[in-house]
Amino acid sequence: MKKDYITTQDFTKEELLDIANLSILIKANIKAGYPLNVLYHKTLGMIFEQASTRTRVSFETAMTQLGGHAQYLAPGQIQLGKHESMKDTSIVLSRLTDILMARVIERKTVDELAKYSTVPVINGMSDYNHPTQEMGDIITIMEHLPEGKKLEDCKIVFVGDCTQVCASLMMMITKMGAHFVHYGPKGFQLGEEYLRLAEENCRVSGGSYLVTDNEEEALKDADFIYTDVWYGLYESELPKEKRMEIFYPKYQVNMDMLKKCSPNVKFMHCLPATRGEEVTDEVMDDKNISICFDEAENRLTAMRGLLVYFMGKKDETIEICNKNLGRN
Amino acid sequence: MKKDYITTQDFTKEELLDIANLSILIKANIKAGYPLNVLYHKTLGMIFEQASTRTRVSFETAMTQLGGHAQYLAPGQIQLGKHESMKDTSIVLSRLTDILMARVIERKTVDELAKYSTVPVINGMSDYNHPTQEMGDIITIMEHLPEGKKLEDCKIVFVGDCTQVCASLMMMITKMGAHFVHYGPKGFQLGEEYLRLAEENCRVSGGSYLVTDNEEEALKDADFIYTDVWYGLYESELPKEKRMEIFYPKYQVNMDMLKKCSPNVKFMHCLPATRGEEVTDEVMDDKNISICFDEAENRLTAMRGLLVYFMGKKDETIEICNKNLGRN
Amino acid sequence: MKKDYITTQDFTKEELLDIANLSILIKANIKAGYPLNVLYHKTLGMIFEQASTRTRVSFETAMTQLGGHAQYLAPGQIQLGKHESMKDTSIVLSRLTDILMARVIERKTVDELAKYSTVPVINGMSDYNHPTQEMGDIITIMEHLPEGKKLEDCKIVFVGDCTQVCASLMMMITKMGAHFVHYGPKGFQLGEEYLRLAEENCRVSGGSYLVTDNEEEALKDADFIYTDVWYGLYESELPKEKRMEIFYPKYQVNMDMLKKCSPNVKFMHCLPATRGEEVTDEVMDDKNISICFDEAENRLTAMRGLLVYFMGKKDETIEICNKNLGRN
Repeated sequence: MKKDYITTQDFTKEELLDIANLSILIKANIKAGYPLNVLYHKTLGMIFEQASTRTRVSFETAMTQLGGHAQYLAPGQIQLGKHESMKDTSIVLSRLTDILMARVIERKTVDELAKYSTVPVINGMSDYNHPTQEMGDIITIMEHLPEGKKLEDCKIVFVGDCTQVCASLMMMITKMGAHFVHYGPKGFQLGEEYLRLAEENCRVSGGSYLVTDNEEEALKDADFIYTDVWYGLYESELPKEKRMEIFYPKYQVNMDMLKKCSPNVKFMHCLPATRGEEVTDEVMDDKNISICFDEAENRLTAMRGLLVYFMGKKDETIEICNKNLGRN
Repeated sequence: MKKDYITTQDFTKEELLDIANLSILIKANIKAGYPLNVLYHKTLGMIFEQASTRTRVSFETAMTQLGGHAQYLAPGQIQLGKHESMKDTSIVLSRLTDILMARVIERKTVDELAKYSTVPVINGMSDYNHPTQEMGDIITIMEHLPEGKKLEDCKIVFVGDCTQVCASLMMMITKMGAHFVHYGPKGFQLGEEYLRLAEENCRVSGGSYLVTDNEEEALKDADFIYTDVWYGLYESELPKEKRMEIFYPKYQVNMDMLKKCSPNVKFMHCLPATRGEEVTDEVMDDKNISICFDEAENRLTAMRGLLVYFMGKKDETIEICNKNLGRN
Repeated sequence: MKKDYITTQDFTKEELLDIANLSILIKANIKAGYPLNVLYHKTLGMIFEQASTRTRVSFETAMTQLGGHAQYLAPGQIQLGKHESMKDTSIVLSRLTDILMARVIERKTVDELAKYSTVPVINGMSDYNHPTQEMGDIITIMEHLPEGKKLEDCKIVFVGDCTQVCASLMMMITKMGAHFVHYGPKGFQLGEEYLRLAEENCRVSGGSYLVTDNEEEALKDADFIYTDVWYGLYESELPKEKRMEIFYPKYQVNMDMLKKCSPNVKFMHCLPATRGEEVTDEVMDDKNISICFDEAENRLTAMRGLLVYFMGKKDETIEICNKNLGRN
């Protein structure tokens, strides 16, 4: 039976850690210069309803590094559910490719694609969540754990608007049993539907979550500060000026804000960033604080792990990498 | 001397069967998990004057599976005959790639491309014909022959408008010596130019052809019913409503229609389909009757065979596949 | 330390000849049918601010032939410096690819990309110069040297408008110590900025340069005549009719013009050409005179050499090719 990667809520903490650790192992193997061919001659079909450089380039590089090939089906090229039923498109693409990814405008589109597809489907972002970003983010956090702390001990704070990246980070962090805070203004905080998931995850994992506009409560002892842009993501949003008024200056990540966090706090951003707005140059360019470019690279790290995992090549890949790296 | 695949009329029955059988052998090899590298590091240049998902994805997957790479030159990227003479474009692309395919608006464009190109050219559909579809279709028919029947004994009925898919099916079926019927309304039936080819093919092959709007005559003992959409293919066609009136309900493929055919009749469609118009859900989703998704997969089957054949790798490929599969 | 290929002015004659000779060796290896995998599983990110068939196809075929893959980022897909600072885009793409190329509208864009990128950047043409074309051109000239002449003895004449191809040819020819002429009307001749480079190059190399509208002076003993289109390259240029008046008939490359050159003169053109305007059919199609299609093929020759060189694989590649070809 094929498995899809539509939301991390479909997976246990252990399964997600499995994928993260697989991703980290493959990264070590590639960095050490050992070629991998576990997806030799395989084809990933990439369906984009919206343009996305980072997601597209990461997936395409990942397939090349694994011996396969990614086909870029640009926005407008496949109009899911327009000229042909989603069912027919899903079945046909399943016959012509080995695995699919889709960046969609509406969540239900990728759900339906997965429903009818006979090959695995990876959600490359919807209006609801962004699970490949989540995987790259948890890998980045695991690689930058504060000295002496376990993942479960960390406090991760998302600052700003409740974007799908914010929601996704919440899902991953609470699933892992760590401590998640959404620090944002009322009216732009994570809603009920998401908070039910946070509740459910924390009950199982022992983690915690908090949604607040109280600065001190939010920032105290924070190990990771994460932010995203303040406008431009949705069609039906307030004009830029209105949104700036809401978030600026209180929610800008700058050195003053970081002083209120743990002394070893790290800065994360899903990128692209609007420098000078949600984050200052000073923060973003600080080699000791900013890990947002490592995070960008870990999009690729995550894509490789996800592709290998959902193509059913986990065990084979672990064996090859361990052998290459002289581990066992 | 390079050979092109512009129309199946340029080939004998034996040559076409050679390509079909080569395609089927490669399919078996790939399904059994044996990698092929007969087009190792080769480049297919894919020129699209019109968008086409199925053709593009099939060719691109085919090249990956054969060890090569397909370059997607999207509509608008190369404007054949606009900024540069067709002659110059053909010569230059021949210097930079190993084989070309073109989906063109007008038949003469692919003819001219082939005339000047020094590498093989495959016709990926024109307003006149669709020979890669033909090859996938004959493979599909060969894989689903009614028990006890040879290809030459089969009756294949195209229902509806005389699209280029209808014309192409006619060329292939009459070439093979089987029995072709176009069941469509007057004014939308295959024209003189095509019927001369049918006549010529049947004289050589012993096959037959019929164009009729008489239901009983058309459907009686039909082994395969094939249809295509009723509107949306051409710019200068009647409005949708007018076209619906002409074809609906008489030419809709539904269970009632299929009851008038051979008891083991199979349903084919080049896709995309407009469910509820030219075909019902019931027919399309019937696992025993509908072979339209096998047919879609056989676009890929055909592309692999065609690429190998026109790149001059037939003998080498047959040897490798037979060895892999333990045949001789 | 990574090196970029932004302008040939950054390199010595010896370095440029090194790349040219490496390119020629790889060409011999590929033509002899020996696969190369020196860029195995490597990714080239291709950023296009303007469409370009020749450059794109050459790079993409080159990467396939070297065992890697080129990602085509079409105009509009990455908007350099729009949604994100050039710095961030450069850093992120450096994390996700192994080497970058960019065809840009303004020279400063590729300069900035190279400044922040941590992987090598190749200039795929700007409004200022076209150094990959230069490399293909010098290879073509080396392959078609007049009998008994060395490169340094040759006279290469660019006829027509001072396009970036004209400027680039000047840089390469004067760097090599050969003799460059721009034969064009006043007002459309190479400007001061470029002539300072010509001066500087000739001082080092012993070559010469001349800018003139005097036919006899320009054409006498010319070994290579090179031209480019007369209009359509820039947004703010004169209307086509005005430009035709300026260049036609004096600067059209036809048989009469070629009779005033060396008896073994060769014709070059970066293509696409407007036949009947800057060059006649008779010249372009003359098998003894026209080497513009060899020149087009040498775009690919140059791309392979440049990719190998800037990826730091020169020595390894030379060793492999020499071994394959039985040289030492």
